Formats: sequence, C-alpha cells, structure tokens
Amino acid sequence: MLFLFFEAGKLKRLPRTGWLLKGIPNPESIADHSFRVSLITMSLADELKAKGLEIDVERALKIALLHDLAEARVTDIPPTAQYYIDKSKAEKKAAMEMLLSTPRPREYEEGLSLEGRLVKFADKLEMLIQAYEYEKTGFKDPNEFWKVIEKLKESEFYEYFGELVDGLSLHRD
Amino acid sequence: MLFLFFEAGKLKRLPRTGWLLKGIPNPESIADHSFRVSLITMSLADELKAKGLEIDVERALKIALLHDLAEARVTDIPPTAQYYIDKSKAEKKAAMEMLLSTPRPREYEEGLSLEGRLVKFADKLEMLIQAYEYEKTGFKDPNEFWKVIEKLKESEFYEYFGELVDGLSLHRD
Amino acid sequence: MLFLFFEAGKLKRLPRTGWLLKGIPNPESIADHSFRVSLITMSLADELKAKGLEIDVERALKIALLHDLAEARVTDIPPTAQYYIDKSKAEKKAAMEMLLSTPRPREYEEGLSLEGRLVKFADKLEMLIQAYEYEKTGFKDPNEFWKVIEKLKESEFYEYFGELVDGLSLHRD
Amino acid sequence: MLFLFFEAGKLKRLPRTGWLLKGIPNPESIADHSFRVSLITMSLADELKAKGLEIDVERALKIALLHDLAEARVTDIPPTAQYYIDKSKAEKKAAMEMLLSTPRPREYEEGLSLEGRLVKFADKLEMLIQAYEYEKTGFKDPNEFWKVIEKLKESEFYEYFGELVDGLSLHRD
Amino acid sequence: MLFLFFEAGKLKRLPRTGWLLKGIPNPESIADHSFRVSLITMSLADELKAKGLEIDVERALKIALLHDLAEARVTDIPPTAQYYIDKSKAEKKAAMEMLLSTPRPREYEEGLSLEGRLVKFADKLEMLIQAYEYEKTGFKDPNEFWKVIEKLKESEFYEYFGELVDGLSLHRD
Amino acid sequence: MLFLFFEAGKLKRLPRTGWLLKGIPNPESIADHSFRVSLITMSLADELKAKGLEIDVERALKIALLHDLAEARVTDIPPTAQYYIDKSKAEKKAAMEMLLSTPRPREYEEGLSLEGRLVKFADKLEMLIQAYEYEKTGFKDPNEFWKVIEKLKESEFYEYFGELVDGLSLHRD
Repeated sequence: MLFLFFEAGKLKRLPRTGWLLKGIPNPESIADHSFRVSLITMSLADELKAKGLEIDVERALKIALLHDLAEARVTDIPPTAQYYIDKSKAEKKAAMEMLLSTPRPREYEEGLSLEGRLVKFADKLEMLIQAYEYEKTGFKDPNEFWKVIEKLKESEFYEYFGELVDGLSLHRD
Repeated sequence: MLFLFFEAGKLKRLPRTGWLLKGIPNPESIADHSFRVSLITMSLADELKAKGLEIDVERALKIALLHDLAEARVTDIPPTAQYYIDKSKAEKKAAMEMLLSTPRPREYEEGLSLEGRLVKFADKLEMLIQAYEYEKTGFKDPNEFWKVIEKLKESEFYEYFGELVDGLSLHRD
Repeated sequence: MLFLFFEAGKLKRLPRTGWLLKGIPNPESIADHSFRVSLITMSLADELKAKGLEIDVERALKIALLHDLAEARVTDIPPTAQYYIDKSKAEKKAAMEMLLSTPRPREYEEGLSLEGRLVKFADKLEMLIQAYEYEKTGFKDPNEFWKVIEKLKESEFYEYFGELVDGLSLHRD
Repeated sequence: MLFLFFEAGKLKRLPRTGWLLKGIPNPESIADHSFRVSLITMSLADELKAKGLEIDVERALKIALLHDLAEARVTDIPPTAQYYIDKSKAEKKAAMEMLLSTPRPREYEEGLSLEGRLVKFADKLEMLIQAYEYEKTGFKDPNEFWKVIEKLKESEFYEYFGELVDGLSLHRD
Repeated sequence: MLFLFFEAGKLKRLPRTGWLLKGIPNPESIADHSFRVSLITMSLADELKAKGLEIDVERALKIALLHDLAEARVTDIPPTAQYYIDKSKAEKKAAMEMLLSTPRPREYEEGLSLEGRLVKFADKLEMLIQAYEYEKTGFKDPNEFWKVIEKLKESEFYEYFGELVDGLSLHRD
Repeated sequence: MLFLFFEAGKLKRLPRTGWLLKGIPNPESIADHSFRVSLITMSLADELKAKGLEIDVERALKIALLHDLAEARVTDIPPTAQYYIDKSKAEKKAAMEMLLSTPRPREYEEGLSLEGRLVKFADKLEMLIQAYEYEKTGFKDPNEFWKVIEKLKESEFYEYFGELVDGLSLHRD
C-alpha cells in the first residue's frame, strides 16, 4: 500500500507537460489535475444520480482518483507524442500491474462502463476550465480551447451539462 | 457548480505554507496534498471494510475531496497562526456556505463520524509520507517527523495501520 | 533579536497569496513587497517634509518595515478571506507580542498617526505599481487596477501625490 | 520618483546570483535581502543608540534601503566576477545618477560614516543568517559560513553584537 | 528550418523528469543537459584527436546537439517507463522524420560510429557531474551515483578519461 | 577539463537576466540559450556551405558552444548595465583565461572571422525566436521585437536567411 502512495507522490512532482510545451512557466502538477477531475466527477455523478440515472458514485470516484496514476510510471506524454507511442497500451499495462497490489482490482477497471465514460468527460472538462483560467491571466491559445469544447459537445453527457460547458465560453470574452 | 470548480482551481495555485515556512523551495500545492489524502482514504477505507468495519467509502471519499476546499477561501494557515485565529470556525463558515450550493449538503458534513475521523488520520499520514519524501532529498526536520508519528500512534486507526506507519520510520534510516 | 530576524526570514519565503489566487505563477514574496513599501514611504515622507508637513521620517520607515511582519505568523491572508476572519485583530495581537521583545515598542504602534496613514497609502500605491508591472507582461485584471486607484484617490495624500497615481494610469495604455 | 520605484521593482525579480551559483534552486531576490538588511539595521541602530552611541537612525535606514538599488541596473554580480569588473565603481556611477533625481541626495551618500559602516555589517549579518537558514533545510557549504563569520568578528560592531553572531554558530549544530 | 528551432525551444521548457521523480525541485531542462553534453563532447573529441585517434569532431558535435532533440516530441521518459515503452524505437522514428527536413541527413545518423559512442559516453558523464553538483547542495542518492560510475568504467573511453571519472568520486567526500 | 565542465554547470543555473527584468517569471537559463544558438549555428553553417561559401562548420560550432561560457564568471549582465560596465572587455579577459586551459586555444578566438560573425547572427536570431515564443504565451514587448529584427536586417547574413527572419514576423499576427 505504501508503494502505491509513493507512486502517487510522483504525480505531485510531475508537471502536466502539455502546458509546459505551450509555454506555461510553472504549470499544474498531474496530482493538481487529478484532484479537480475527482471533484468534478463527484459533482457530476451526484447530479446524474439526482436526475434519475443509475450510477455508482463510489466507483466513479475511485476511477477518477486512479485514472492518472499510471502516469507516475510513464510520465505525462503530450498528444504530439501519441503518434509515436501507443500510450494507452503502455498505461494499461502499468495500471494493471499497479492495481493487482490494491485490495479489490476489479472495481477500478476503467473501460466502457458509465462511470469510466463520466471520468473521461470530467477529465476533458477539467482541462477546459484550466485553459480558461490560464487564458484569464494572459495565456492565449484559442484553437486549443475550441477543440476541447467540440469534443465535449460530442459527448453523451453534454445533454446534461451543456449549460456548464457553454457557460465557460460565454464567461470568456 | 462552476463556481465550486473555480474554488478548487485556487487550491492548485496555493502552496502548503507549512513547508514554505520550513524552507522547502517549491512545495506541493494544497490540491497536490488533497489528491493523495483522497487516495489514502480510498485505500484505508477499502481495507477497513475488508476487515469487517461498517464504513461508507463513498462518504469518506467525498469528505476527503472537500476537506481542504475551505482553504481556497481562507488560504493555508500554518499551525503557528492558530494561536491567533480560530481557524476551524472560519473554515466551517466557509465550508458550510460552499456546500449549500452543492446538491446534497448533508452528505459532506465532517465531524465525529467514522469517515470524518478516517480522513483526519489520512491527512496526517499524508503529511508524514511527504515529510519522509522531502527528507530523502536532503531536507531535515526530525522533530517534526516524530511529532506527527506520535499523533498517528494515538489514533484509533493505528490498530489497523500500525505496520504502515512504523514501516515509514524503518525505511527512513 | 535573532528571533525577530528569523521571523523576517519567513517573509522572504511566503508569496503574496493575492497574486497567486489571480494566477500569477511565481509572485513576489511578502518581503519583496515590504521592501518597496519602505522605499516608497521614504520618498513620500521626504517629499511631504520638503513641502512643509511635520512628519517623523524615522518613525514612518520603522512602521513600513514592521508593517507586514505580523504576516510571518498568520501568513498572507487574501481579501476574500477577510469576510471570515477578523484579520486586523489577529495581526495586532501578533504584532504586539512581537514588538514587546524589541527595544522601544511604543515607537512602532501603527494607528491613526500621520506616519501610520502614510504607510497605508504607500502599501496601496505599491500594489498598484505591481499590478501595473504584471499587466505589462501580459497579466490582465483591469477591475482590480481601477479599484485600487479609487481608494488612492480618496486618500488625504492624493492631494500631494495625485500626479504620481494618475501617471500610472496614463502610462498604462 | 516613479522611475525610482520601477528600478526597485527590478530588485524583486532579480535573484541573488551568489546563491544560484551555489545551487540553491529558487533563491531569495535582491529585494528580499534588502528588506531584512533594513530590518537588521533598524534593530542594531536602535540598540547602539540605547547603549549611548550617537547614531542617526533615519540616515542608517535610508542607506540600508538604497544600498542595493544600484543592483537594479548592474544586476547582482557575484564575488567571482569581481576579479574582472570593478563593481564598486560601476555601482557608484549608477547610484549617483539615480540619487540625483531623488529629493535630497547628500543624505544618502554611503561611505565612511558610522551609519554606512553599520549597514555593511548588517549586510554581512543578513547573509550569515540566510546561509544558516539554507543550511537548516539541507544545503551545505560550511567554508562559506565560517568565512563570513570571520569578517563579522573583525568588525568594530562585533564588540556590541558578538553574542548575536556567536549565537548563530551555536544554534547550528 | 524554423520548425526545427521551435522543436529545440521545447527542450528549454521540458525538465529532465528523472530528477523531478527523485525530488529535485526545479531541475535542469533537457536543453541545459544537451548544452553540457555538447561541450563535454567537444573537449573529449579534441583530446582524443590530440592523442592520435581518427575522429570527426564536427560530426560528434552535430550528434551531440541533435541527440536529445527527439525528446521534444516524446518528452523525457524516465528509465522506469522504459519497461513499458520501447523508447528508442519511438525516438528513432521521430528523429528520422525530423532529420529529413534538415540539409544533409546522413551526417547525423547516430549508431555504431565512434562519434556516436563518444556522445553516449559524454551523455552519461554529464549526468554524473550533475548528480555530483546536486549532491553538493544537499541532495542524496548514492546508489544512483555509483551505478552511473560503473557504466562509465565499462566504456571503451574509460581508458582515456578514467582520471576524469575517478576525480569526481574523489572530490565527492 | 573538469573545471570547464563545472563552469558550464553554472550556466544551467543562471537565468537570462534580460528576460527577468522584463518580467518573465522563470526565464530560460543561459545554457538553454546557448544550446539553441549552437543548433541554429549548425543549421545556418551547413546551409551556407551548401550555397558554396567557404566556412569551417566545426569552428563555428566551437565558438557557439563557448560563446556564453564567460558568462559563468561575470553572470548575465543585461544591456542597461552596459552603459556602466565595459562588458566585452571583462568577458574577453575571462574567456582568454579559460581557454588557456583547453587543448588548442587559437581555434576558439571569436572575432572578425566569418564563423564568429555567424555566431553573433545566430545569437540574435535565437533571441528573436525566444521573444516570439514568449509573445505567443501572452508576454508583450513589441518594441524589443522590432529592434532585434532591424539588427538582423542589417547583417551580411540577411541576404541568405531573410526569408527565415521575415517568416517570424509574418507568423506573429
């Protein structure tokens, strides 16, 4: 268990390289990002449950917390590298190995479940909010911003949280 | 909901002032800390459940994630200041207000529940692990280290996780 | 005396959290701020004396240098937190205690004296200059800027240093 | 006057290169250093006055605050460079020019006055305290530490503040 | 050509993740590392030539300068990740593509040439020197240090530069 | 030789003070800059050779790598200081002394040679590219930008690389 906590400690020290490559001087750590993804997941899952969907909030939270842990081993590889490396494969291998030493592995498997898909949505939404926050302090990369919005609009959860996503682009100007 | 996410964004930018005052140059953010507290809470809660205790893992995770959110408003006030400021009161006021705008407030109330107490234990354990990690890269403050260990030993959860706590002091030399 | 110097050392390590919350990546330390407040106080006090006002420059400088020292204990609590915490009370308590161990305490009491009021003016002017400087490198928060200007315009010292304050808004565009 | 304040702003952004070259990752700024030098000067000057010496505290404070301002133009040149550059000459030229635009230049001339010498002592004492603080968090450079202590022991002010200087080496182990 | 220069610009912003994972707060950038590798390569190649070996110094310098450029696309993946990702393959693909747009690609092919092997030796030597420098400021990881020394000792170039390598371990205590 | 490598290590830790003074929070190191100057020099020199000019690429690369090494001793003195200090003289003295301990000193003398002039061109071009990159993330200083472009246009190499320089100003808007 201690080993898992040390792995998590690495996420505190690793910056999100995507921001670094865009020139953000001291960007957030992967742990910073994971924290807000988990918080967003919590809010969205509770909301979906309140709206009548059958969703396992505990499971969603666990996926959100573990979601980026594999990064502790393969570090944060930015999108431009994905052409060269099959990241998801490497991550899955690392994630699997890591989860084998946690109490009940089957619970955390990400995949096609509703909870896993929600975490993916929360992951992108978090990035959009962060881009919005960096933009407010002077950073500019409008294309990136709209690209993420487009992806969020295509999601099955846009139906429930469209107002939230659109709110960000309105606030922006 | 967006407002809550912006508050969480502040935790990414706020350093843990306790480490700053001790001279750690670029210490972890409050969000960094909250992330690992949540992860530790998850592991410990699952373990306690496996050992037969009746514990609401979802509730524990929610408390862990929200635990430091009040800091976004009052910032991270280090222990030396607590003589002057009734921090817990201020935090509670802020937390309450914040939670009133989240779906189901009653769920998150921290206090005397088993889950709330577990998060407090995880919070201290996280600090111990971080102190251990800083120590490994050259930082020295042995007194601090042992003070936290003492507190963990007095906890009701030491019975279950004593091996983990003791493991850290063994690894250390 | 050594203890006082160690307290001052903490101000070098503590960032001004107000800027952090606004997204400035590596903002000035409290000591950075205190240094320029003291320098501004020196210039303004000399100017007022030259214009015939009866002002104790030494006393003004001492207040400026000690002004933020209480922060070393309660850290830099940003305005948003003041709703929850009676900051000035906590600071005064800390400041009083600290001053009791310095040679002649009565000299440093801040309050309603002309010198104390001048330091308050210099404190706001320094923040305005800093906002102006951050703005020049891309950071944007125009509302904040004008709010501080308004406060400076209401001050009794605007009569003497109006040109300086207005100069900053002219330079700006 | 505004120009002087902008020059002071540069001292906030310039690191003390001496520490950088020794490997301290995010060292103090020149303004950080100047702030504590001024505070130390204040305490020592008050103490000397209490002990019966005739000292102009206001003048000492002004010298302390302006002491490193010339650095804003020539930046912080570390000792190893002094073999190549006649630093004091360049600084004096810059300082003189800067002071010509401040109200009463004759007041600030540093030199052989008691006040000027006290600031030089405070300057070295500050560096010793900082070295001590960096040492406490793991940084090691004992030779440097003792070299500065030797210089302080040779000073005329060691007679008054010997206890303070010796206190630092005792605390150290 | 401009594109190649932008790629190089990314190396300035990307930290060497190996140091980050070991807890070095603001570690060197990949460009920092590449710069010293090139400088070391220059010195070693000149020395080898002086000792009568037939070596193409220009070619060695070009390999050294381009050696880590592929990292700009795949970022700096630390050794722990290499178990999961076939890094050299990905890098080669990226490097090849990049070199196709530079004037004379055949010149830069790294591989089994004497020059390529020398750059590999310089690359490890640079890391050893950096570890030594971090150690001097308090960072501790003796195992790592000796592991790199062992690799250098097995190299064909140890015959020529053994004194240099051994000098580092002597200086160390 | 080891001494030369330690000097180079200082360039990794020293920031380019020109950017610091302009308010860039964590600017590139001198080593970061030197790395890209060397890479640019390599590309330009190869191009000139391909166009039929008689140029010694190895020599150009050596000048580029050593070009800023003198900075390790006198640190990076920004343009505003040059009014006060005869920088080139000090640097030359330092550079000469340093080169006396490297194998064949006469090779590295910078001056009026074609290779030395090309490095000067690459040095300015690198700064322009960096200014462009900082601009893209929000930093603004248009005057600076155009001033460097003007200098590049006056160079003998503009004839060959005019397209590259002009490309940067076109990309910019």
